[in-house]
Parts: sequence; structure tokens; C-alpha cells
Amino acid sequence: MDEFPESLNVLMDHFRRLPTIGKKTAQRLALHVVKDPDEARAFAEALVAVTEHVHRCRECGNITEDELCSICRSPKRDRAIITVVEDVSNLMAIERGGSYYGLYHVLNGLLSPMADRGPEEIGLDDLLARVERSKASDTPVEEVILAISATVEGETTMLFLADQLKGMGVKVSRIASGIPVGGSLEYYDELTLARAMAERRTLEE
Amino acid sequence: MDEFPESLNVLMDHFRRLPTIGKKTAQRLALHVVKDPDEARAFAEALVAVTEHVHRCRECGNITEDELCSICRSPKRDRAIITVVEDVSNLMAIERGGSYYGLYHVLNGLLSPMADRGPEEIGLDDLLARVERSKASDTPVEEVILAISATVEGETTMLFLADQLKGMGVKVSRIASGIPVGGSLEYYDELTLARAMAERRTLEE
Repeated sequence: MDEFPESLNVLMDHFRRLPTIGKKTAQRLALHVVKDPDEARAFAEALVAVTEHVHRCRECGNITEDELCSICRSPKRDRAIITVVEDVSNLMAIERGGSYYGLYHVLNGLLSPMADRGPEEIGLDDLLARVERSKASDTPVEEVILAISATVEGETTMLFLADQLKGMGVKVSRIASGIPVGGSLEYYDELTLARAMAERRTLEE
Repeated sequence: MDEFPESLNVLMDHFRRLPTIGKKTAQRLALHVVKDPDEARAFAEALVAVTEHVHRCRECGNITEDELCSICRSPKRDRAIITVVEDVSNLMAIERGGSYYGLYHVLNGLLSPMADRGPEEIGLDDLLARVERSKASDTPVEEVILAISATVEGETTMLFLADQLKGMGVKVSRIASGIPVGGSLEYYDELTLARAMAERRTLEE
């Protein structure tokens, strides 16, 4: 074909900008959309609705249609613990585990000097201010759990955060590094195994 | 999280309806959209624009923003040959090959009694009418090439179509079955190899 219809080209570009969507998939998705105009219009409305209704919880950065997210609003949550995550998807994953009842703080990614992401950009200042505010309330924060990726940027962010929280009278902990559940030891690298050894938990004493 | 914001659920459902997009990817894409409202709005506009501008070429079923697609409109195409394909994406793939200069006819899928898809639903009647009309014109159709998948439904469709075109004074041909370019013989099944043997081409005589 000498050229694609221009509006289809534009739509394919938008699909391509999505994570994990390459050129071939973008074409497949765009052609699929052409076949069902009613669904395409409903899809467009859903996109607009999200831009109009969804935003970040003003307390913790989770996504919500309200001022405060369902977690921050819930009387059942343990307000003495805040778990810090780097992305909303991580909050959702921990929630699906079903065994955590504290609050969260969602950062805007991790510290990265190369990407011009400093403490303020990722929301660290908001977290510290929030911990400080809680001291004067009925439910002061007692523990901050860092549930952040064990990558170079993640570990840097955690070290920085732990340092900033020093002297604020809260316990700072970090999720364990070790072998995933169901994983056979032979599949993991030496560094992961070394960490798993170092962070071992006593069974009998 | 007790529940996702409702508008985000709705958006995830729309992503999930797309081919090859599963639950996890749908969540990832929806969360990505939340982060960039300007892009989300532009994406929505692109979807609506496609529904308003793109439709099927009235002659061949290709997609176009005009009455006739760029191929049917082009004076450079060889109007004596029509290649029948089952989907627009196949037309695009053949065009990218760059060595075909005839016209196309895009069906709405293949014959499938189980899915209630008969000759009329998939556009076979339109094709036959088009071939008939061409007889009275300056550029009668001389050959119909069937570029259709070598699957059960595809072969059924091709047999039916070849039968319908009998007696219309056109040559009916079918794209070759054989081993793909670059493929080592050991990777292919016996049926493909048997076809490749049967459809062999003479090098020297």
C-alpha cells in the first residue's frame, strides 16, 4: 500500500508509545480497532474518564478517584506503619498478598542523578513531612518499611531514605532479599544466594 | 487495595479486549496511561478520528479515508490481476514485499459454518460481482490469485472460491506452499515438506 490512512498511522504511534508494545503489535491493535468503531469510541471515552477522575491520593500517592485513596480512608488500616514503594503497581501487588494492613507511600520512581530525579522529584520530601506530621497526631508512624527493588537505583534510594529518616524516632526496615518462593536454588545468581545466606532467619535456638 | 478506581477498571477491560493483551499487560498499560493525561487525551482523539475517517474501500475492502483506497485509485496498478486476501494486514504484508503491482480484494475473514460465516458475510459475492463488472470495462480481470492461509478454513475458502470463479473466464491461481525463505528443512512438518515436493519448480530441462 502506498501509504496507510493518516489517522491510522497516528493511532499506531499512540499504541507504540505504550510499554511492551512494538511496531508489529501496534499495527495489529490499530487494525483491530478499525473493525469495531463502537468499541473504539467506548475505549476513547474510558481514556478520557480516567484523565478526568483518577489522580494521586494527596496523602500517599496511590491512585484514586477521591481526595484520599481507599487505603488512607480505611479505619481498619494500621496507621503506625508505612510501606514505601516506587510505583502503584507494587502497592497493588503487596495488597494482593493479603497480609499487610498498614499504610503506603508511593514514590514517583527512584533516585537517579542521570535522569534528573532527586529526592523532591520522587516525593521523598512529602514522605518525611508526612512522618513528621503524624508525630503530632493520635497515630504517630512507628515503622517505615522500604519495599523497593534491589537494584542499584533502588538500593541507593533506600540508603538515602534510611539516612533521612534517622533521628525521626521511627524504625526503618527493608523487605528481605533471598530466594523467591518456589524457586530451586540452582537458578539463582551468586549475589542473591550470598544475600539469602546473610539474611538467614533462625529456626531453633 | 480494596478496589481499583472504577474508571481504571473500565479502561483495563478495554485494553484486555485487544488481541494478545492479557490481564497483567492490561494493568500495566492502564497504569501507564494514568501517568500521562495529555497523552491519554491525544490517544482518545486518535481513536475517535479513526472511527470517523477510516472505512473500507468500496471496491476492494482495503482500509482508506477516501471512497477508493490508494491502490484502487492508482493508475500504476495492473488492473488485470486481483489478489484475494483474508485480512487487511495480509494486504499490507504483500505490499511491503514490493513486487506485486496488481489489485486486491480483502475478504471479511474465511468461510466458517461454525461461526456462521458464509460466502455473503465474508464478501465473496462482492468479489464475483466485481470480476463480472470488469468484463464490460477497459480493464477486464484476467487472473485471480488466492493469497489465503493454508489452514482448514483457508483451503475450504479457496476451493469454494475457485469453484465460483470457474466459467468466468479468469485464471485462478493460489500462492505456493513450501518452505519459508531462510528455513532449515529440519524445522518443518511432514505435510509442509510433502507439499513442497509436490509443488516443485523445474530448474533445468
